[in-house]
Amino acid sequence: MEQIKGGVTAAEGFFAGSCAANIKYEGRTDMAMVYSKKPCECAGTFTSNVVKAACVQWDMQLTGSGDPLYAVVINSGIANACTGKEGFDACIATAKAVEAELNVPYKGVAVASTGVIGMQLPVDKLTAGVKEMAHKLGDSIEAGTQASKAIMTTDTVNKEIAVSFDIDGVRVTLGGMSKGSGMIHPNMCTMLAFLTSDIAIDKALMQEALSEAVKDTFNMISVDGDTSTNDTLLLLANGASGNKKIESKGPAYDTFKEALFYVCRELAKKMAKDGEGASRLFTAHVVNAKTKDDARTLARSVISSNLSKAAIFGCDANFGRFLCAMGYSGVSFEQEDVELFFESAAGKLKVFEYGVPLDFDEDEALKILKEDEVKVFIDMNEGTQEATAWGCDLTYDYVKINADYRS
Amino acid sequence: MEQIKGGVTAAEGFFAGSCAANIKYEGRTDMAMVYSKKPCECAGTFTSNVVKAACVQWDMQLTGSGDPLYAVVINSGIANACTGKEGFDACIATAKAVEAELNVPYKGVAVASTGVIGMQLPVDKLTAGVKEMAHKLGDSIEAGTQASKAIMTTDTVNKEIAVSFDIDGVRVTLGGMSKGSGMIHPNMCTMLAFLTSDIAIDKALMQEALSEAVKDTFNMISVDGDTSTNDTLLLLANGASGNKKIESKGPAYDTFKEALFYVCRELAKKMAKDGEGASRLFTAHVVNAKTKDDARTLARSVISSNLSKAAIFGCDANFGRFLCAMGYSGVSFEQEDVELFFESAAGKLKVFEYGVPLDFDEDEALKILKEDEVKVFIDMNEGTQEATAWGCDLTYDYVKINADYRS
Repeated sequence: MEQIKGGVTAAEGFFAGSCAANIKYEGRTDMAMVYSKKPCECAGTFTSNVVKAACVQWDMQLTGSGDPLYAVVINSGIANACTGKEGFDACIATAKAVEAELNVPYKGVAVASTGVIGMQLPVDKLTAGVKEMAHKLGDSIEAGTQASKAIMTTDTVNKEIAVSFDIDGVRVTLGGMSKGSGMIHPNMCTMLAFLTSDIAIDKALMQEALSEAVKDTFNMISVDGDTSTNDTLLLLANGASGNKKIESKGPAYDTFKEALFYVCRELAKKMAKDGEGASRLFTAHVVNAKTKDDARTLARSVISSNLSKAAIFGCDANFGRFLCAMGYSGVSFEQEDVELFFESAAGKLKVFEYGVPLDFDEDEALKILKEDEVKVFIDMNEGTQEATAWGCDLTYDYVKINADYRS
Repeated sequence: MEQIKGGVTAAEGFFAGSCAANIKYEGRTDMAMVYSKKPCECAGTFTSNVVKAACVQWDMQLTGSGDPLYAVVINSGIANACTGKEGFDACIATAKAVEAELNVPYKGVAVASTGVIGMQLPVDKLTAGVKEMAHKLGDSIEAGTQASKAIMTTDTVNKEIAVSFDIDGVRVTLGGMSKGSGMIHPNMCTMLAFLTSDIAIDKALMQEALSEAVKDTFNMISVDGDTSTNDTLLLLANGASGNKKIESKGPAYDTFKEALFYVCRELAKKMAKDGEGASRLFTAHVVNAKTKDDARTLARSVISSNLSKAAIFGCDANFGRFLCAMGYSGVSFEQEDVELFFESAAGKLKVFEYGVPLDFDEDEALKILKEDEVKVFIDMNEGTQEATAWGCDLTYDYVKINADYRS
């Protein structure tokens, strides 16, 4: 497997478009479309929030139906959540606009939205946007990059990635894009992420691989502990690479799964690092936990704690806050078993050992904590399982962004 | 029942002392003692955090033993959490210092600490502090007030309250003090709160009343979602009022319980309003939920959400964030049933009705949200149960305080 340039248009047969539909933002693009002429098998995971956006409800119907998917239309600015029947009708109107332009069944068109909750989408602008995009779809890397920019809200950088790998001698590509960067605490899924591949694979197998990948990638990041109403991860596979269709588990499936984990993990890390107001990537790596779930829960609890995040912002080696977050995570453990280290490009330093604080060098700790990417390494010494979670620091800018996000 | 002046010394036979022991802070008091010559029945609730401070472990032994309690010694500056055997020995040394000074069994002396985690307490300073306080214990209101000031950390105001009520014609008093103001997300209990009463009551009944009161008071506040390692709530009752001992449920028990709920609720609200960096009290009142637990969970989720809290700081009527927080709370409900209002001294405004956002007056919303105390009123329209939770806004000052708290 090798990482290659591009995102959603990297795989064979996928096109993308974007436009400025003036839905809420001005002076920038705010709609994107991903399209494959060949029908796609699709897999998806969605927010566990009871309050599901209208688009999530629509996409869950589509991915559950077994029908092929042809396109995804995404808008930024308005989330189409808490919008009742009018909001759901906007999804159908968008899908029908794609049907009219590209001659694909509207039940093969997924939609996704991100932005302010509790505001109706302007359907006329959406359908005009679809019409414009349908006429300028392209399969260049640049077309994919432009799409990844159009779906940004408070993101400061666009997020895309692609990899190639061989299956039975056939070159297969998997690419994707995602966006953050607030209301990020995915549960069963993430904010918006769209993956495309030219692989041929059984739908159920693809869903299984995606659901597994999500657990250790998108579900292991947090920006602010708020699980969005709109979390959507879609994977479209059109089979254009010509590989022999993967119908069962084996080496080919494993190769695909490895690539899928890689793409999901890299997109997830990009989202964490670009969390609202974030100044650094904050990783918790838990090893030797009793169970995999324990390892995940502990790592997630540490990077989700406001107090831990504020300490990371302040380059403060206040390790007690990490232990506190582990303690209220719901996992049972003995504090006398735990060892805790700070780690970055500048070095690694043990600060807590078997229930007792160490008399560590504060200057060395500061040097480590001043790096852009900081890790807390936690050895539970109680088992063999490990997990990693990615978050970011809590900064003045997070408060600033969210005190006046709607205005 | 009437509210009276004072705190922990309001009830008959309770003394308090405080001193500057220079444990970590300089130029201020940092130790307090509460004492009753008459032995006290006691009840307590403690943090559910797996990582329990040494003092919590000590107090859990005492309150579980059935032995009477005589005193509580509290220090601020260092939390005595994650400190191993050395930390536990510091608790015993403190209790034995009280035994030496006041001639009470050391197993009748509770201790509590608040401050930085992962740092050892200076035992010599603790015992010197106990000696100093033992010689200047007083039962004046002022002595109680001084004690409530000595236990403050990032609190900006001290927190105390007292009430009197009649039981079978006998005047009984209940008073208390508490402190916040970060790492506040009590679970089974709260940060530090100490209640004293001259009531005579069966220990088991007292514990039952306290455990019930905590559920709707201290456990319904949150400042930052971080459940502390040190949460401790102790209630001491010395029987000095002379009431006929309450041995069973009935009108006398109900009167006591009502007073206990009132005192706990008022102290909890004071903690929420004085949350780290807070500029306003942010209340969520949920009505007509299916179950009491649902109502509590929904209210707590709303006031715990970083995004909701930042919106309150910005006076932004971004009600979608409240619905989002309700949606990921774990409670199952139909968004089509929900009505949502903003409410304060400046008025009440409906913004969401049966799944649909209303076209409300933004100026009126701003007027309501600019008040010092702001409420979100949520009608679930699915049952008959209600609950209230209290929090605060998320401000620049919260980040500032916690980025350099340890230094």
